Amino acid sequence: MRIDKSEIEQLEQRYRTAFINSLAGFRQAVLIGTRSVDKKTNLAIFNSLIHLGANPALFGLMSRPDSVQRDTLQNILETKEYTLNFIQATHYKKAHQTSARYEKGISEFEKVEFTPVYLSGFGAPFVGEAVVKIAMKFEESIPITLNGTILIVGSIRMVDINDGMVGKDGFVNLSAAEVLISQGLDAYFISSEVGRLPYAKP
Amino acid sequence: MRIDKSEIEQLEQRYRTAFINSLAGFRQAVLIGTRSVDKKTNLAIFNSLIHLGANPALFGLMSRPDSVQRDTLQNILETKEYTLNFIQATHYKKAHQTSARYEKGISEFEKVEFTPVYLSGFGAPFVGEAVVKIAMKFEESIPITLNGTILIVGSIRMVDINDGMVGKDGFVNLSAAEVLISQGLDAYFISSEVGRLPYAKP
Repeated sequence: MRIDKSEIEQLEQRYRTAFINSLAGFRQAVLIGTRSVDKKTNLAIFNSLIHLGANPALFGLMSRPDSVQRDTLQNILETKEYTLNFIQATHYKKAHQTSARYEKGISEFEKVEFTPVYLSGFGAPFVGEAVVKIAMKFEESIPITLNGTILIVGSIRMVDINDGMVGKDGFVNLSAAEVLISQGLDAYFISSEVGRLPYAKP
Repeated sequence: MRIDKSEIEQLEQRYRTAFINSLAGFRQAVLIGTRSVDKKTNLAIFNSLIHLGANPALFGLMSRPDSVQRDTLQNILETKEYTLNFIQATHYKKAHQTSARYEKGISEFEKVEFTPVYLSGFGAPFVGEAVVKIAMKFEESIPITLNGTILIVGSIRMVDINDGMVGKDGFVNLSAAEVLISQGLDAYFISSEVGRLPYAKP
């Protein structure tokens, strides 16, 4: 099957959204925990986590201002704090349910029954059930003017990770813990290792 | 295990790189095909593909100017054309080998034995073995000044995909084709489906 730009533009809208979004491939599923200035908790699933660099340790996130993600974005911009939480695949239905358009002020933690926990004096809530919990500080937002999305850049303040998941070389074994992977808007996966390889030399 | 920002900064460099990079989770492995202005082909593995939007269909890539990825970046900026290629897991060793620092002018297509193919009059080479081939046009580069990385924004010009991989709803079934997933600098995976879920409602 071959499809060009003008044919993509003529696709039915929901078909095109599913096609292009799933075409971007496999991505880490991450639950983002935030708190509003009046301390109401919020939890939302994202699949746009981006590694920007290890020193300083910076991760990015893409956000659309016009979507269900706007409460998360507003909380990040106002409080400068957010958490990244990786969960095991057994929780995938609850994780997906955080993408529903709950009214502002309703906490997804309560609605889908994840446990909010607070660590190291950090204001934003973590997901108690998560096997990887990362505290993030907002650094800057970079607008992508072509389509009105925003790249949120944050620095890692703290990582809390289940014992035994970090190897002697620093590698985080997410696969053995059956950490949830996402593709497109609604598909969830776990991974099987194919292999690790040495540094490639010419 | 809990580790904070100052402890991360004090980690041994290679350990920190492996830790933070793998901590960003699972990502699509993609081979980027380019050609220089004097028509020398280049192929490099990336794991920073980002979905930016479906209408217009835009994908992003993160690039470090100071790395083995610089030939790819230069070719994209000079020719405005590049290809994204998803391969099956059986090819993972060859795909990883494209990350070696070959001298400029040496084609990774020849060195690792992927087949360059040209489609629809597009100047950049595709990977013949890829089950998903995407022609991209460079739109803009956005600097992340905090750490000197660059977000490359491109629009989809054409998608060539193996028959039977696209469902009736537009979803691209990468899992059944055993499309390669990456984590960190050197780990490769395939996926098993956990499930697809309906649009979440409150």
